[in-house]
Amino acid sequence: MDKRPIGIFDSGVGGLTVVDKFFRLLPNERIVYLGDTARVPYGNKSKETVTRFSKEIIAFLLRFKVKLIVVACNTVSSLCLPALQKSCPVPVLGVIKPGVLEAVRASRTRRIGVIGTQATILSGVYKNEIKAVSKKAFVAQKACPLFVPLVENMWLNGEITLKIARQYLSPILAERIDSLVLGCTHYPLLKNVIRKIVGKNVTLVDSSEAVTKYAGLLLANRKLLAGAGSASARFFATDAQASFAELARVFLGKKIKAKKVIL
Amino acid sequence: MDKRPIGIFDSGVGGLTVVDKFFRLLPNERIVYLGDTARVPYGNKSKETVTRFSKEIIAFLLRFKVKLIVVACNTVSSLCLPALQKSCPVPVLGVIKPGVLEAVRASRTRRIGVIGTQATILSGVYKNEIKAVSKKAFVAQKACPLFVPLVENMWLNGEITLKIARQYLSPILAERIDSLVLGCTHYPLLKNVIRKIVGKNVTLVDSSEAVTKYAGLLLANRKLLAGAGSASARFFATDAQASFAELARVFLGKKIKAKKVIL
Repeated sequence: MDKRPIGIFDSGVGGLTVVDKFFRLLPNERIVYLGDTARVPYGNKSKETVTRFSKEIIAFLLRFKVKLIVVACNTVSSLCLPALQKSCPVPVLGVIKPGVLEAVRASRTRRIGVIGTQATILSGVYKNEIKAVSKKAFVAQKACPLFVPLVENMWLNGEITLKIARQYLSPILAERIDSLVLGCTHYPLLKNVIRKIVGKNVTLVDSSEAVTKYAGLLLANRKLLAGAGSASARFFATDAQASFAELARVFLGKKIKAKKVIL
Repeated sequence: MDKRPIGIFDSGVGGLTVVDKFFRLLPNERIVYLGDTARVPYGNKSKETVTRFSKEIIAFLLRFKVKLIVVACNTVSSLCLPALQKSCPVPVLGVIKPGVLEAVRASRTRRIGVIGTQATILSGVYKNEIKAVSKKAFVAQKACPLFVPLVENMWLNGEITLKIARQYLSPILAERIDSLVLGCTHYPLLKNVIRKIVGKNVTLVDSSEAVTKYAGLLLANRKLLAGAGSASARFFATDAQASFAELARVFLGKKIKAKKVIL
């Protein structure tokens, strides 16, 4: 048993979908979360800048003596995971690999769709990782840059959101995919709208759930799981803790308090 | 005649609408522009954070021995102009006051609409400044948080953008306004769509044009205008110069090169 906390971070509130899964699937763990709300979003920024920001965040999380760091952000995971793993003394887990394994498992036809931010899609990481696991897989990708602002502004349903989703998803649906990776931690909040468009025959792969299961296995294998009675959660934001906490209510379904930290 | 450059900054590319106006109206001036593309957008961030970022940018611009700083960002102008003016050795001009004067001049009925980012609208600065100039004015405000991502993704026309604009503008149109302040430097790029919705009887006030005229007057009054033959323009971005330059082509209608700088 290892009571040290797990550090989880994202550019903003999106990574709370991962925290939500941790609460459900690994309820004994202590969580330290940081959302970089002063510099959100990352999805349209460069590898160099996103790497610099991520290293600053990891340095902050390491102060809490974390046993594991979970990158709850597909953009960071796509752009610079190896660089972060190389410079960090504890394991760093990204969301891509778990999502890829889940998608390949879920797909019968090996025709897989991936949606994400501009940076995630342009990196080609999902495509490459899927093909590394399943050589014959066909991958249809699409960047959906307006999805994050829609979620951050709580336009989770309604005609406009549906129309935007249809515009983004139509070209990859035309490729007859049978599973779709939600390659951004904000996207699970748009599941209803996305489901309406893809229909019931396409499996939606939620990378936040996949990474949590993956983290559970890693912790179990290394005998690092926390025992009962350890659970706790601390939240930090680099800006506007109040609005962070407000959005967090939507992501987590409960009230939290966030502390401000300047990196 | 004063050949020192003018520093202009914004959270990203939006402020280039101001640079565009400078090129047209004050074509002899030397311009140094910085877009804080590593931390864009500002419109949903706190006063404290936006002030901190802005002071870092002004410190950078002062290295060029600028004679004037133009805050080409309504969010910064709304949240912290006095703080910036207080700590800066050269005049700092914001976009609010010039836009307000123009709007009051344009309005016959004194029923004025203002649209802007969340931070700009919540600050109430436009409303207060309009009422300071014209006591009996009625001001209808509306935050349009999806407009910036729409512009940044070049969704400048089309059905979805029109629908979003209609949703934002309908409540203030119902207040029978006769002029509308485009209170964000991104918004002039949505002029076509906005015009379709407000009709031809509402005057659109472009704060980028207003601030440029205002700067021209200030420079003339203080005998700080540059003479012929001085013109030049340098562009800096805190991230991804390539995509900055690409969007800049749309804003300025010509190719530019941008240098990266880390603040």
